[in-house]
Amino acid sequence: MKIKVINPNTTLSMTAKIGEAAASVAAPGTEVVAVSPRMGPVSIEGHYDEAISAIGVIDEVRRGEEEGFDGYLIACFDDPGLAAAREIAKGPVVGIAEAAMHTASYISGGFTVVATLHRSRIILEHLARAYGMDHKCRKVRTTSLAVLDLEVEGSDAQSVIFEECRRAIAEDGSDCIVLGCAGMADLVAAIHKEVGVPVIDGVTAGVKVLEGLIGLGVTTSRLGGYAHPLKKTYIGSMAQYQPD
Amino acid sequence: MKIKVINPNTTLSMTAKIGEAAASVAAPGTEVVAVSPRMGPVSIEGHYDEAISAIGVIDEVRRGEEEGFDGYLIACFDDPGLAAAREIAKGPVVGIAEAAMHTASYISGGFTVVATLHRSRIILEHLARAYGMDHKCRKVRTTSLAVLDLEVEGSDAQSVIFEECRRAIAEDGSDCIVLGCAGMADLVAAIHKEVGVPVIDGVTAGVKVLEGLIGLGVTTSRLGGYAHPLKKTYIGSMAQYQPD
Amino acid sequence: MKIKVINPNTTLSMTAKIGEAAASVAAPGTEVVAVSPRMGPVSIEGHYDEAISAIGVIDEVRRGEEEGFDGYLIACFDDPGLAAAREIAKGPVVGIAEAAMHTASYISGGFTVVATLHRSRIILEHLARAYGMDHKCRKVRTTSLAVLDLEVEGSDAQSVIFEECRRAIAEDGSDCIVLGCAGMADLVAAIHKEVGVPVIDGVTAGVKVLEGLIGLGVTTSRLGGYAHPLKKTYIGSMAQYQPD
Amino acid sequence: MKIKVINPNTTLSMTAKIGEAAASVAAPGTEVVAVSPRMGPVSIEGHYDEAISAIGVIDEVRRGEEEGFDGYLIACFDDPGLAAAREIAKGPVVGIAEAAMHTASYISGGFTVVATLHRSRIILEHLARAYGMDHKCRKVRTTSLAVLDLEVEGSDAQSVIFEECRRAIAEDGSDCIVLGCAGMADLVAAIHKEVGVPVIDGVTAGVKVLEGLIGLGVTTSRLGGYAHPLKKTYIGSMAQYQPD
Amino acid sequence: MKIKVINPNTTLSMTAKIGEAAASVAAPGTEVVAVSPRMGPVSIEGHYDEAISAIGVIDEVRRGEEEGFDGYLIACFDDPGLAAAREIAKGPVVGIAEAAMHTASYISGGFTVVATLHRSRIILEHLARAYGMDHKCRKVRTTSLAVLDLEVEGSDAQSVIFEECRRAIAEDGSDCIVLGCAGMADLVAAIHKEVGVPVIDGVTAGVKVLEGLIGLGVTTSRLGGYAHPLKKTYIGSMAQYQPD
Amino acid sequence: MKIKVINPNTTLSMTAKIGEAAASVAAPGTEVVAVSPRMGPVSIEGHYDEAISAIGVIDEVRRGEEEGFDGYLIACFDDPGLAAAREIAKGPVVGIAEAAMHTASYISGGFTVVATLHRSRIILEHLARAYGMDHKCRKVRTTSLAVLDLEVEGSDAQSVIFEECRRAIAEDGSDCIVLGCAGMADLVAAIHKEVGVPVIDGVTAGVKVLEGLIGLGVTTSRLGGYAHPLKKTYIGSMAQYQPD
Repeated sequence: MKIKVINPNTTLSMTAKIGEAAASVAAPGTEVVAVSPRMGPVSIEGHYDEAISAIGVIDEVRRGEEEGFDGYLIACFDDPGLAAAREIAKGPVVGIAEAAMHTASYISGGFTVVATLHRSRIILEHLARAYGMDHKCRKVRTTSLAVLDLEVEGSDAQSVIFEECRRAIAEDGSDCIVLGCAGMADLVAAIHKEVGVPVIDGVTAGVKVLEGLIGLGVTTSRLGGYAHPLKKTYIGSMAQYQPD
Repeated sequence: MKIKVINPNTTLSMTAKIGEAAASVAAPGTEVVAVSPRMGPVSIEGHYDEAISAIGVIDEVRRGEEEGFDGYLIACFDDPGLAAAREIAKGPVVGIAEAAMHTASYISGGFTVVATLHRSRIILEHLARAYGMDHKCRKVRTTSLAVLDLEVEGSDAQSVIFEECRRAIAEDGSDCIVLGCAGMADLVAAIHKEVGVPVIDGVTAGVKVLEGLIGLGVTTSRLGGYAHPLKKTYIGSMAQYQPD
Repeated sequence: MKIKVINPNTTLSMTAKIGEAAASVAAPGTEVVAVSPRMGPVSIEGHYDEAISAIGVIDEVRRGEEEGFDGYLIACFDDPGLAAAREIAKGPVVGIAEAAMHTASYISGGFTVVATLHRSRIILEHLARAYGMDHKCRKVRTTSLAVLDLEVEGSDAQSVIFEECRRAIAEDGSDCIVLGCAGMADLVAAIHKEVGVPVIDGVTAGVKVLEGLIGLGVTTSRLGGYAHPLKKTYIGSMAQYQPD
Repeated sequence: MKIKVINPNTTLSMTAKIGEAAASVAAPGTEVVAVSPRMGPVSIEGHYDEAISAIGVIDEVRRGEEEGFDGYLIACFDDPGLAAAREIAKGPVVGIAEAAMHTASYISGGFTVVATLHRSRIILEHLARAYGMDHKCRKVRTTSLAVLDLEVEGSDAQSVIFEECRRAIAEDGSDCIVLGCAGMADLVAAIHKEVGVPVIDGVTAGVKVLEGLIGLGVTTSRLGGYAHPLKKTYIGSMAQYQPD
Repeated sequence: MKIKVINPNTTLSMTAKIGEAAASVAAPGTEVVAVSPRMGPVSIEGHYDEAISAIGVIDEVRRGEEEGFDGYLIACFDDPGLAAAREIAKGPVVGIAEAAMHTASYISGGFTVVATLHRSRIILEHLARAYGMDHKCRKVRTTSLAVLDLEVEGSDAQSVIFEECRRAIAEDGSDCIVLGCAGMADLVAAIHKEVGVPVIDGVTAGVKVLEGLIGLGVTTSRLGGYAHPLKKTYIGSMAQYQPD
Repeated sequence: MKIKVINPNTTLSMTAKIGEAAASVAAPGTEVVAVSPRMGPVSIEGHYDEAISAIGVIDEVRRGEEEGFDGYLIACFDDPGLAAAREIAKGPVVGIAEAAMHTASYISGGFTVVATLHRSRIILEHLARAYGMDHKCRKVRTTSLAVLDLEVEGSDAQSVIFEECRRAIAEDGSDCIVLGCAGMADLVAAIHKEVGVPVIDGVTAGVKVLEGLIGLGVTTSRLGGYAHPLKKTYIGSMAQYQPD
């Protein structure tokens, strides 16, 4: 099976890191292709970046349908464009936030999400609630780290994240860490070693969720709210996204 | 004060209707300008249309900031682009779904949302839950009507809507109707006459909410999740939306 | 339009302050009359005071109906008598707690209510839950301040409130302050200056909500739970409140 | 122990019926006194009646404290004045709605409340939610019956109630009936015979809850939201209720 | 009436203590028999112990049915085997966690559960949520105490519990303590003296709840999810528990 | 990897069917072994059967640990013994109800669970709520079918299930069917053909979830509520289950 992992931001070093993480857990026979869109922000920090990045996600899913992918993983913890992508992809589409939180729920009595900038907190709290995971997510911890700080060699990003993970265990009563940014996908082992509890990264979790769905032969229901977009006219710069 | 009412779809007959509804309740001194974006779908029916339409909303808010608007109303019941718009507008931004549901909560013990196509149901249920109105919203009723059926003279749109409104009263135990599409803004009086309970349209409700916020001198908090987008590079076709 | 702002307690200095706040945001053409009931407690601190004060609220609404008011604002953050008042007023009735919380939800990702005595905490938490705002209200902060401490020149009331507002920002992750007592209506500007986030006072917010509802021409639904009281006998000292 | 059962309405035939029901389950050594207040409505149907009736409840609790009662049961399914009464009574105070719903939760997988007029539905739904019983209460069924219809010999009240109870079993998937009006306290056996499931009446349930609390030697906490009312001035017709 | 109090663990010193507590509040005419099962763990700390202990609870209820008991109290704060026991007992069955939490809700604005080992926290949080008491239960506080530490003369168990109770008042805003282990049943008076708020122990609370249910003549509904187990074959070591 | 699929009931024809379903979706390299416990009920219908069956589940997990399994699937839709099994298994443990519901949430806007006997309804509703899936699960539909009716050639079981599935689509507004019994695992294709929406069976879904977790190298957190059982004495017939 072929899975397209879409890093909705356009920072290719992060895409490479995400691709490596995804490939590291892919089953034999699973081909993982990690891409960044041709357009959009270099990082996604807030609702505005997120709304813009959805176009890139859509663009990559549309191209992916022609390229013959069996499923898609949206590799930003805001899950941008997730519902829209479900309407246009034949195969299943999964976001890393939903994948990480549902996956954590199988092995944890209560987890903490450790994310980047404080401004993302309400986005992640909203997602936890929308996914029904608010009773499992004891806290969303945010930091002073920008997403791209995670790409800088020698930054203190790792130590900041470690500190929040330690506090998650000590103060939140959590028994599991969920990494709240795709850019942390390479930190799983180090954090696990540091805090000794399971660490769930949405990129790797999402690959396994997709392998599962594709393996089951199920895909997004076409009956209800995720039916294919209706044929209609799109004008102006968005005409290119007009549904077929 | 100047309020920009953005119909996120590009059907100008609907924009005109929305503009008339908005103007009909505007206080003396409130200037209402109703627009459609320069790009996007002719109607918004589902998550895909919604995600695309957010670009048009953003485009209009960005232009509006240069034009000197004091606040914005997003006149589609999916509230597309609402959170993103809040980050870039100096003044407050309100969506018609949130305006309608909160407004109804002041005068009703339980309301039914009557909307267009069945595929919108999960979007509206999600909004009700996100806004904390799920205990007030007894039911989201959807129909076989497309949004643009509302623009066709002589269609049976009105009779279909009336029928759902009657069922809302008879079967849901609701005491108030919330119109689940900006394209129904001209039906308030007729429906009220038909079913005898308050009918809340988000376009008119949203104008009053905005007048209230602007009159109070308050706007979106800049401290947390709605802070102005961070400066960063946007590439490709989205470069034009790069935050300042 | 004529709006009656009812301070449910009988401390006239507070009524004057409330009236000033209400008038300061009233639109041209809105006449605001602030009153205290002819009976009841000098301050409302707890369920008992609240239950008694509901009689005063009812008394003023009944008088108001004869005086020709178009709507009513109940200016105590416990919203005493709100549902009862809705049944007897032709126009809409709004409580300052509900007005403040719904208003804050348009501009905030999460707010803290800062109130007076600790004993009010469960009342305000109950209201937040009843209004569907418990996911938006990050914390109800209470203090050692009695309501009437706010009326005393030279008390440390302001500094106590400022301290809680600072903690709301620093500890609760809130981006907005909701003032949990009508007696704080004169502190909006000072607190905003101190903490730099939007500060919502229910008195001013409530005036704008009422202007909105009256401007829309909608009022409490008569079909369901807010129908006019049924004709029936009331005996003893309550005979005077027998419904017509 | 001495328990005062307060029928908050002033219809003495109902008070007598409530008193009989209460006495029928009282343990040896429990003295039950059923009273109606000296003031207030002949029946409680809606928020307005309820707010007024709270004064009567308060009046009876204040008198009860002088008469030496050990606890109080508020015998109207709206639980009027419950929180206020808790602040002024030395012993515990229980409402029949809370008593009935909590009691049903021990023996039922899901119950239906069968009440009187439709206008009470939102009150009872609000109580179920406030008590945390909304997941146990599958439905609140209301009828065209006025409260006092239950007092009329030869009315069809019983058959209307029976029909709703049958529908509760057949349509709601409930396995238990909760009677939503104190005036139904004499119907327990007949309904149980009719529908074959447990039938919980709040009057009898409330007596047992009170016997339990008093037997445990516990009473309302004085630390928090139910502390004794603060000393303060009450003016006008409410001066008589000024806290000591 | 005869009530069987089942301590689901097999530590007889604890059973004796539980029996004393139960007897201390039993009404005249209530015969309380406290037992431990013939099989199972010496203490219940976690889900595994709990699942095993359910067999002992079932065994005792089955024997109890032959011995002629009118009701059963499951005296472990995890409420092990509660739903199963309801299906096989003719009379009502109550767990001490549900009894304690519902009882506390009548006298408290918000309580803290103080329990033993940290590993029990998610069990108790789950119960609070399942019983609808999560909005009343402000916090579940756990400690480093094993259950059997409570049985050791001269241990620091009491001082550890006192400390958590003090913190519950100071930090959680709670006005009531719920004891989260049957082994604390003898500490009620001492803790109450220490912290000055009501202290609810599930053993004593549960006896009163059972007296209430039996006094009302109601028992578990047989219509729905608690119907008697269907006749069927059980094999192997569980054959002895085959339903009749 | 080796996965043990435990059918908690002792009907071997069902175990065989479950094993076939599990094997049909297993990835290359996944060895699936389906077993029934050596003790327990022939079918699980209600809380009592469920509590007893947990012993069989525990017994099989304990044996599985010696046999070298990497993970366990509990193949009864009540998820009996799930939390207990998590404490004693080194690898992850998943229940088919949680697997099915979380899996459905990735591809559906709202699903209906179609199960066997009506008595199971409250168990499944409780699970949906406990897993945070109550907002996704529009309805739990139960029938007059006993579990073992599914094993009888020529019974009308299939037509009864089909009818409920059709009603789920037509009446519940669901876009996906979740099969509420492991014994339906062979009906996926037929139901999908009948109703045209995705059909999720927990047995196959659970195999993929386990493959995912094991593939990620994560297992149940040992820090909190799922820590290994503490060493302690178990007496009587349960002594054999004493933790090591």
